[in-house]
Amino acid sequence: MSLFDVYRQLRKPPDGKIVLVVFDGLGGLPRQPGGPTELEAADSPHLDTLAAEGSCGLLDNVLPGLTPGSGPAHLGLFGYDPLEYDIGRGLLAALGIGFPIEPGDLAARINFCTIDPDTGFVADRRAGRIPNETNAQLVALLNEITLPDCQLFVRTVKEHRACVVFRAPDLYDDLNDTDPQTVGLHPPHPVVAADPRSEKAATLVAEFIQKAQAILEPHQPANGLLLRGFARYEKLPQLDEIFGIRAAAIATYPMYKGVAALVGMHVLDDAGESVADEFDCLERHFDDYDFFFLHIKKTDSYGEDGNWDAKVHVIEEGDAQLPRARALDPAVLAVTADHSTPCALKTHSWHPVPVALWGRWARRDAVEVFTERACAAGGLGRLRGIHLMPLLVAHALGFEKYGA
Amino acid sequence: MSLFDVYRQLRKPPDGKIVLVVFDGLGGLPRQPGGPTELEAADSPHLDTLAAEGSCGLLDNVLPGLTPGSGPAHLGLFGYDPLEYDIGRGLLAALGIGFPIEPGDLAARINFCTIDPDTGFVADRRAGRIPNETNAQLVALLNEITLPDCQLFVRTVKEHRACVVFRAPDLYDDLNDTDPQTVGLHPPHPVVAADPRSEKAATLVAEFIQKAQAILEPHQPANGLLLRGFARYEKLPQLDEIFGIRAAAIATYPMYKGVAALVGMHVLDDAGESVADEFDCLERHFDDYDFFFLHIKKTDSYGEDGNWDAKVHVIEEGDAQLPRARALDPAVLAVTADHSTPCALKTHSWHPVPVALWGRWARRDAVEVFTERACAAGGLGRLRGIHLMPLLVAHALGFEKYGA
Repeated sequence: MSLFDVYRQLRKPPDGKIVLVVFDGLGGLPRQPGGPTELEAADSPHLDTLAAEGSCGLLDNVLPGLTPGSGPAHLGLFGYDPLEYDIGRGLLAALGIGFPIEPGDLAARINFCTIDPDTGFVADRRAGRIPNETNAQLVALLNEITLPDCQLFVRTVKEHRACVVFRAPDLYDDLNDTDPQTVGLHPPHPVVAADPRSEKAATLVAEFIQKAQAILEPHQPANGLLLRGFARYEKLPQLDEIFGIRAAAIATYPMYKGVAALVGMHVLDDAGESVADEFDCLERHFDDYDFFFLHIKKTDSYGEDGNWDAKVHVIEEGDAQLPRARALDPAVLAVTADHSTPCALKTHSWHPVPVALWGRWARRDAVEVFTERACAAGGLGRLRGIHLMPLLVAHALGFEKYGA
Repeated sequence: MSLFDVYRQLRKPPDGKIVLVVFDGLGGLPRQPGGPTELEAADSPHLDTLAAEGSCGLLDNVLPGLTPGSGPAHLGLFGYDPLEYDIGRGLLAALGIGFPIEPGDLAARINFCTIDPDTGFVADRRAGRIPNETNAQLVALLNEITLPDCQLFVRTVKEHRACVVFRAPDLYDDLNDTDPQTVGLHPPHPVVAADPRSEKAATLVAEFIQKAQAILEPHQPANGLLLRGFARYEKLPQLDEIFGIRAAAIATYPMYKGVAALVGMHVLDDAGESVADEFDCLERHFDDYDFFFLHIKKTDSYGEDGNWDAKVHVIEEGDAQLPRARALDPAVLAVTADHSTPCALKTHSWHPVPVALWGRWARRDAVEVFTERACAAGGLGRLRGIHLMPLLVAHALGFEKYGA
């Protein structure tokens, strides 16, 4: 029996609200050996109280040693094994710009590229990183393309990056990337279907590429395009039918709204922009849902910039808002991250993320402060991220007993 | 390769005896925030010594967040993944009253119910919770029923609950419950086979129900019956052939004897009644087996009653006996629980259970006392319960190396 089938059999209405606050990229590392992490450096008394009164641990949102991308990391936090629910990159690109993806859509990433007119070989896989305005002009041209019995949506991402969505029945995604991954040696690969059911998509994509190349030809350096990460959107099991909870997402960036929508959360459209705005939104809607995912983005952004002070400040900003969530009297309040983004690495990392789970039925452990180091000795131990959702639901008394 | 196949390939005669003491429902919670758990409140110096000298950790006997029933929890402790070895409720009901179940038997739970004579609808799903004596009289009548080429065993559980076992070749259990789960709206559901191989069972069960209804008709309020939890008993892999150990069970309640028998333990019939009696039994049989499962029931019973002092006392009672197990000089002595039963919840809970594993080859960790909080920082970490058995066997040097 699958885990989701187990949860489906055991679910019952939760006894109170669950609030999950995710600081994106929260986990960190010291700037120099022996120093504090960003979280240790932050003055975050409310997070510490939450940790002291609750159960703490460390989460691996994909698997130990694997650095999660944002999509898989959040799927893991929402209970979906990212190794099983493999959301393709084309789909994540579409979610990342807020495209309203529908089940059955086939999405892919586009790179505008430079093609040598003499050889036909790829000369620059990023077309000299054209400005966003040029990108938008080219995308407008590509949206003029018509395909037989297929809706086409081309959208700008930024610089040389765009994405494309094909909407028609029976489009499957076992298609190769056209990017040869080399410069000056090969033309773009033709698209080939690796299984019979993907042949319809291969034909449509080939027609799209042919028409797109004709349109782009005079637009050097962006006189060609490469397609990668073909991904059909298969509707995921939804949180309400797995766990029996009505879930809402409070997030300010399209990617996180998109992943939340994939799992069946209602994405609130009044989340505002600041962390304080997001807690305002939580207060406004607190009576309307069982579960709230509140996403704080900029810990990750500043981690990627290597901006230590700014990352620490965002932790403190979130900490200062936390009492507002407690004041709403939720059954469960948990704080964690999707992955680590240490300023020292300026990128996502594999380091497990701290988690504090607070509530009436949380078994207090010996952890007194909310840091990576302290949480390592907590009562939740080191868990796969997929176990967090069932723990949240359990602490809200939302499950029957398993077996007699 | 399955885990059991791995163990089968690696097993060798253990170097000494293994004793596993299970305090049922041991894990707890504070009565008020910040207070001690039952285990923290107990004066249990011998458990503390065991923890201080051994390796400690926390176990999830099903999965994090899932509250184990007694059957799945013990299967987990014995190394059987309860998600894979799904012992149906009918079977657990039969084990719970000590019925000598045999492979191929089909078991189900019976509820005596009240049926409205005018509408035929279920009017009371528990027949007003009839006394045990009435139950026994009705069960005696039902045992008079004869079925073609099928042995029938109906047994009292208590109040409105009974169980039935059908014994014939080829009885499979993909059958629906007849309980409509509503009152005043529906008659009992007919039994329907969801696959062809369960059709023989469906026919026999339908005949049983028809004859039973005719017998019960004049016995209002128990003028009907509902069947639930159909479960065929498929023989499980046995401990001796998986781990190469001769195992014995010392338990005082039928359910635990039953689950132990399912996995191939020899259930000792001189376990007595008190905890001290059980340790007497351990001493008497210590030379005769490699492995002993000693089950202490009343920590759970008092947890379910919410009787804090009595639960603490049972912990202390078990603690006082522990030196007798150590005096027998086992290779491995481990103490844990099947699940938590906090007095504050008065029911099983999902909280992980502490475990202490003591022996010549246990690696001592920093844990000094046997409590949930201390064990969270122990050297065993937080593990699925199914990993305890191989750890016990390993500490008795009962495995060869895996690979070269």
